[in-house]
Amino acid sequence: MNDTVKMGKILVEQYRTVRQASLDLCQSMQIEDFGLQAMPEVSPPKWHLAHTSWFFETFILKVYVAGYQSFHPLYEMLFNSYYNGIGEQYPRSQRGFLSRPTVKEVMSYRQYIDETMQSLLCNVEHPEFEQICQRCNLGLNHEQQHQELMCTDIKYSFSFNPLYPALFSVPENKRCTNRPLTFTGFDTDDVLTGYVGQGFHFDNERPAHKYHLQPYKLADRVINNAEYLAFIEDGGYSRAELWLADGWMWKQINKITRPCYWRQQDNEWFEYTLYGLQPLNTELPLCHINFYEADAFARWSEKRLPTEHEWEAACRKLSQKPDNESIKLHPQCVNSSDKKLQMFGSVWQWTQSNYSAYPGYQADKGAIGEYNGKFMCNQMVLRGSSCVTPPGHARITYRNFFYAKDRWQFSGIRLADNI
Amino acid sequence: MNDTVKMGKILVEQYRTVRQASLDLCQSMQIEDFGLQAMPEVSPPKWHLAHTSWFFETFILKVYVAGYQSFHPLYEMLFNSYYNGIGEQYPRSQRGFLSRPTVKEVMSYRQYIDETMQSLLCNVEHPEFEQICQRCNLGLNHEQQHQELMCTDIKYSFSFNPLYPALFSVPENKRCTNRPLTFTGFDTDDVLTGYVGQGFHFDNERPAHKYHLQPYKLADRVINNAEYLAFIEDGGYSRAELWLADGWMWKQINKITRPCYWRQQDNEWFEYTLYGLQPLNTELPLCHINFYEADAFARWSEKRLPTEHEWEAACRKLSQKPDNESIKLHPQCVNSSDKKLQMFGSVWQWTQSNYSAYPGYQADKGAIGEYNGKFMCNQMVLRGSSCVTPPGHARITYRNFFYAKDRWQFSGIRLADNI
Amino acid sequence: MNDTVKMGKILVEQYRTVRQASLDLCQSMQIEDFGLQAMPEVSPPKWHLAHTSWFFETFILKVYVAGYQSFHPLYEMLFNSYYNGIGEQYPRSQRGFLSRPTVKEVMSYRQYIDETMQSLLCNVEHPEFEQICQRCNLGLNHEQQHQELMCTDIKYSFSFNPLYPALFSVPENKRCTNRPLTFTGFDTDDVLTGYVGQGFHFDNERPAHKYHLQPYKLADRVINNAEYLAFIEDGGYSRAELWLADGWMWKQINKITRPCYWRQQDNEWFEYTLYGLQPLNTELPLCHINFYEADAFARWSEKRLPTEHEWEAACRKLSQKPDNESIKLHPQCVNSSDKKLQMFGSVWQWTQSNYSAYPGYQADKGAIGEYNGKFMCNQMVLRGSSCVTPPGHARITYRNFFYAKDRWQFSGIRLADNI
Amino acid sequence: MNDTVKMGKILVEQYRTVRQASLDLCQSMQIEDFGLQAMPEVSPPKWHLAHTSWFFETFILKVYVAGYQSFHPLYEMLFNSYYNGIGEQYPRSQRGFLSRPTVKEVMSYRQYIDETMQSLLCNVEHPEFEQICQRCNLGLNHEQQHQELMCTDIKYSFSFNPLYPALFSVPENKRCTNRPLTFTGFDTDDVLTGYVGQGFHFDNERPAHKYHLQPYKLADRVINNAEYLAFIEDGGYSRAELWLADGWMWKQINKITRPCYWRQQDNEWFEYTLYGLQPLNTELPLCHINFYEADAFARWSEKRLPTEHEWEAACRKLSQKPDNESIKLHPQCVNSSDKKLQMFGSVWQWTQSNYSAYPGYQADKGAIGEYNGKFMCNQMVLRGSSCVTPPGHARITYRNFFYAKDRWQFSGIRLADNI
Repeated sequence: MNDTVKMGKILVEQYRTVRQASLDLCQSMQIEDFGLQAMPEVSPPKWHLAHTSWFFETFILKVYVAGYQSFHPLYEMLFNSYYNGIGEQYPRSQRGFLSRPTVKEVMSYRQYIDETMQSLLCNVEHPEFEQICQRCNLGLNHEQQHQELMCTDIKYSFSFNPLYPALFSVPENKRCTNRPLTFTGFDTDDVLTGYVGQGFHFDNERPAHKYHLQPYKLADRVINNAEYLAFIEDGGYSRAELWLADGWMWKQINKITRPCYWRQQDNEWFEYTLYGLQPLNTELPLCHINFYEADAFARWSEKRLPTEHEWEAACRKLSQKPDNESIKLHPQCVNSSDKKLQMFGSVWQWTQSNYSAYPGYQADKGAIGEYNGKFMCNQMVLRGSSCVTPPGHARITYRNFFYAKDRWQFSGIRLADNI
Repeated sequence: MNDTVKMGKILVEQYRTVRQASLDLCQSMQIEDFGLQAMPEVSPPKWHLAHTSWFFETFILKVYVAGYQSFHPLYEMLFNSYYNGIGEQYPRSQRGFLSRPTVKEVMSYRQYIDETMQSLLCNVEHPEFEQICQRCNLGLNHEQQHQELMCTDIKYSFSFNPLYPALFSVPENKRCTNRPLTFTGFDTDDVLTGYVGQGFHFDNERPAHKYHLQPYKLADRVINNAEYLAFIEDGGYSRAELWLADGWMWKQINKITRPCYWRQQDNEWFEYTLYGLQPLNTELPLCHINFYEADAFARWSEKRLPTEHEWEAACRKLSQKPDNESIKLHPQCVNSSDKKLQMFGSVWQWTQSNYSAYPGYQADKGAIGEYNGKFMCNQMVLRGSSCVTPPGHARITYRNFFYAKDRWQFSGIRLADNI
Repeated sequence: MNDTVKMGKILVEQYRTVRQASLDLCQSMQIEDFGLQAMPEVSPPKWHLAHTSWFFETFILKVYVAGYQSFHPLYEMLFNSYYNGIGEQYPRSQRGFLSRPTVKEVMSYRQYIDETMQSLLCNVEHPEFEQICQRCNLGLNHEQQHQELMCTDIKYSFSFNPLYPALFSVPENKRCTNRPLTFTGFDTDDVLTGYVGQGFHFDNERPAHKYHLQPYKLADRVINNAEYLAFIEDGGYSRAELWLADGWMWKQINKITRPCYWRQQDNEWFEYTLYGLQPLNTELPLCHINFYEADAFARWSEKRLPTEHEWEAACRKLSQKPDNESIKLHPQCVNSSDKKLQMFGSVWQWTQSNYSAYPGYQADKGAIGEYNGKFMCNQMVLRGSSCVTPPGHARITYRNFFYAKDRWQFSGIRLADNI
Repeated sequence: MNDTVKMGKILVEQYRTVRQASLDLCQSMQIEDFGLQAMPEVSPPKWHLAHTSWFFETFILKVYVAGYQSFHPLYEMLFNSYYNGIGEQYPRSQRGFLSRPTVKEVMSYRQYIDETMQSLLCNVEHPEFEQICQRCNLGLNHEQQHQELMCTDIKYSFSFNPLYPALFSVPENKRCTNRPLTFTGFDTDDVLTGYVGQGFHFDNERPAHKYHLQPYKLADRVINNAEYLAFIEDGGYSRAELWLADGWMWKQINKITRPCYWRQQDNEWFEYTLYGLQPLNTELPLCHINFYEADAFARWSEKRLPTEHEWEAACRKLSQKPDNESIKLHPQCVNSSDKKLQMFGSVWQWTQSNYSAYPGYQADKGAIGEYNGKFMCNQMVLRGSSCVTPPGHARITYRNFFYAKDRWQFSGIRLADNI
């Protein structure tokens, strides 16, 4: 068995695993849940399932399979997210209006794509087999991104329902007490930021480039609910001096007084989770706050948020790596004995770095170049990964990005400071 | 068998018939359709099914059944439409976000209500049996109103789907040619407007009162698509002099150039119907236009819209009555031989009368008084009934009401003029 | 001197008086005040001064003066309020952005129009002299309407200024105590509503027509601040059962808790007036409330608002007529000895009648037909006149109209009830 | 004469010069112009005149003058721009509603402040004299910033007036032909970015810090109207592939097809300038485009925008410095013979750098710390200076910042590229 055949076989296996993982996430959803869209920024689970299939169809099957018959003529438009190079898109804010195609029809669509993709991946003689494999890899990483979004999106949409639906039952109650909040210091350094190597990575992680760092220190874990509660109780949401101008305006207009899913009833705090509404566990990592809140908390702490360069350099220095653990539906706490610094697998960590091109960055040619490049404006970089990031998806150089106002991701706070 | 027993038996029968009719309407819906809400003014089918049950539970079971156990503690809030006297309401614009309770759970809710209601209706010894029967009658008429809304609402929500879902298959193609548009004249008269008698009617139809009419004439049928097309082709949508000031502004802001469900493709006109997208049948009654469009068309025709007094008086004079036909899903045309004047069963007819209280009107006491009275401002009266009005629901004195901007009802035009 | 000459002379005199009155109103304004526009519905004083001149220019000078040279080519568009038949209009909401033409230039414009108009009015030989006189009369009544608006608009715009500018000094403090609130009853009647005669009136006051009234009673004075304060203190703004559905929504969205110009400081009530911020005089007529508030107050009082037919019929029966008093800048109270019922000269009185066409109404042909007719939708009729209505402008049949939400006019409440 | 006395004398002189320059800018304004505010982001000239005085009053006079009597108790709130540490602010979007204080009153306010300030600056014995001088310097630079804003703001507000007011007469027509667009290359380098020295600078220019640059080239002049016209004529505004996602959305929603002040009449291009509406001079620098347009133009040119580090490093290498020329009201072109590279004095140049804190940045303590720091989010850095930047105000290290959507500044394009 030669290398190409082997590569194809491995990829088919990965393809099956990743595609199945999307379905696994939906196992306890009701058909009614598949169409939910409670704000323009989130998509219905059904749409995610269709769009990820559309990605394979549009960028691989239509390109590399001679005489490919598309599954449905209108799907090209219905499930195009934002690729102007492909054509018109169904309005993003109206995805929840698409009761048809039904869940069953979308499952048929997935199956059709899966069969065609797998037969293509077995065709090792295909003259463009290498590029097909590369695009397939991109498609699988794209699907994993949408798996994370399926979790965050359905959580957001569910949160409008006073019945507080639980998608999963509460896991066994592991008692845990956080380590104290300590910091590790780092000296002046010229570091290399960005991806180096041959493995899969997104275009926005390259080119790797030299960056000059001044001395700094970084927290050894993320902020927990107890610490954020102290901020609230100290009047954090009503002290203008702690906030960025845009953040203060956002807070005032939207009358924000707490993280996205915190609820107060009879003076008790609760948190909505994918296990339903639960009493707030103060030892757990804080999540679902936006950049403005993260920045205000840091100022209140007399610290600051790290830059993405600092984050990445520390990660390398401290040999932190994502492990391959499966998705958890809520971030866990770290025990005193734990050597993990929660760089990965807990909450995405807001940095003070804007999402912009690395020096020398070039987007890919064609519609696929719209994947990352056109969003390099007005957004902030988050680093690490979260409890709902699929296994094998995270990387030290991974750059997640959201608007400063966004709260529906599993986003939290890691503090930094000057030395 | 005494009268009360008989009345109870009849009512139980009516109860079963009307409640079943709601379910019949949903027969060809997919579970995914039950949650659709494409604008705040429309409700998902599931919500209609639950709310109509809530009405019986809130205004009858909780009041008249000792020790009544409510089906679910949160439903009182979730399915309260607008009764402030009952309590808080789940936000109207977010009804589409309620994937739970599921369709199945709502069906159980309906069954629970049905069983309790039927056993109550058999309890003829109940000291307040008469009032129970009256409220039950109101509940059934309320349910019929929501049956009509289920049709108009799902049609509206479906219209955002480029797949143009068809709930029903197109009925056999009856060829028809409209009668010419003729008018009947009426002399000066003192008429009695409003309901007189013992049968069921809404509070807004009373008290009957004397009204002085000047000579007028009224069209013998409603306007059809061909006639409205002539208005469009004559520049109707771009001639300010034909429009009310508010109507012109509405048209400009929303860039309106055609009725709600008309579509133009390759110079051909189509109309979205509950049978899917169909070539525009020019002989069929025009529907889904709002008051502004109706008024502009009338001005273009050098005629005017009738007042509700004129409409009702003509209806009596010409002995027009609603027949008991079952719901059709699209208005039909009238043949030359037809003696029906399309007062009923085709499209609701915009009048130039504002929806306001009849002299001496008193709303009922308590929360149920919110049914009609609090809407007597800023809306226009429509008279007649439409192709989706349930059999037995229409009346000569019936006052339907919508905002001048509303287009999603089966609303059309009957012209009038001075003599 | 023949009749035509006499008519011309009288008209010239009236012309001078009315035109001068507009300038008199501006006497204590600063140049900076002339450009103020704090919401789209109000216009800057300078714009009123120009637009009223535009009216004479557009509908008289350009039509009847051969070879008329317009003052400035762009003014046709800049000072056209809403006449689509004349052409494009500068956006209403941006009138405050027009620092040019300056006040001085607008005064020159007025002078130019005045000279041309007066010379036209002296030309009694003009073949269309009669129509010129009619239009001039309309122009003068139009100017008077704008004089009232100049008062209400500048008051509204000033109210955003924490310095609370006073245009005039507070008049001598006349002590007054209101009469008790009594009602006069009226029997069933067939009345004639609308203008009959040869004098000036607007098209919307005709044709006079027969209307059937049921017995009713009407308050002998308008509601005063003390009475409205009792409504507030009884929770009037927080009891949903008192409000129309649209009114409650308006109140909730805008967080309304008091009339437009009431302010509360250190538990004391103040009212912003054209004399500046003053302690609330509880004996004075309530003003600057909208239809929703008027309706809610009436329901709280267990009364209702009158219809415009009832108002007009009572006015005739009780021989109430507008007197010719000059503008006062705030409504006055009525003493026990006073025989006036405050039908005129105090506050416009909200009726429960929608502003719609009288039976047989025909708008004038051409652009001038846009004066009143195209607004006959979504507005409510107010009757009487206010403290800022110019002398000679009011009439028993006068129909003022505003949206239910509007509060910036001198609008108040007269109660009615069924008998 | 010792140093302190000398410093005081110099400062008094500067104070007079800068303060007078604000008044000079208003010389040809009409009183009516002083209140104009055509969008929330711009302020009326009168407000600028008052606010800059407020700055001296609030941060110097109230702090350092014992027993200081404020000019008017309400001015603290009325003319506070955004300093939450000082207290409440009059709503920014309503500054145009303040017809009072009048222009004359604001001039008195300025005079009062000027007299008190000058007497303070002469009091060299004041124990905090050094800090007073520092703050005064900040106040003067602050005033200069507002002088630039007075030009850009009144231009924006005037542009809504179809009369296209000219504040100044067109200067003599200097014929000019631009040099061809050439680039200068720069090698890999470790540069120092930020202010070093003892002179005045804003807190956001420090600390100077090391930055690693890769090879790049920078254009020798800014883009002119002819070049941007070519972009438009090549479909630049309708090719999605050229635009950032947020930029494309901005363009679509606002239907943008040209720079802010370009107008097309009868196929001819015009540009609104402070000299009135003028035929578009294609040789002049392009101005009044936002970051999205700058970025799209760069992509169309197959180049990119520079980073602020690249811009500053090039500026030093090429020994470009701001000259001390007085304000011009429109950018000039550079002739072939000209050695100036238009780094200064023409248009602000959009960089691809987000406005964020330099490593180690610390905002000042107290309310004055709100000056720059709280805006370090969501904005882009512009470098250089413009034709309306006051003499002596520009610096190589100066960081101007605006939102990516903002167009009303004299902002243009300098291209860069990788090597």
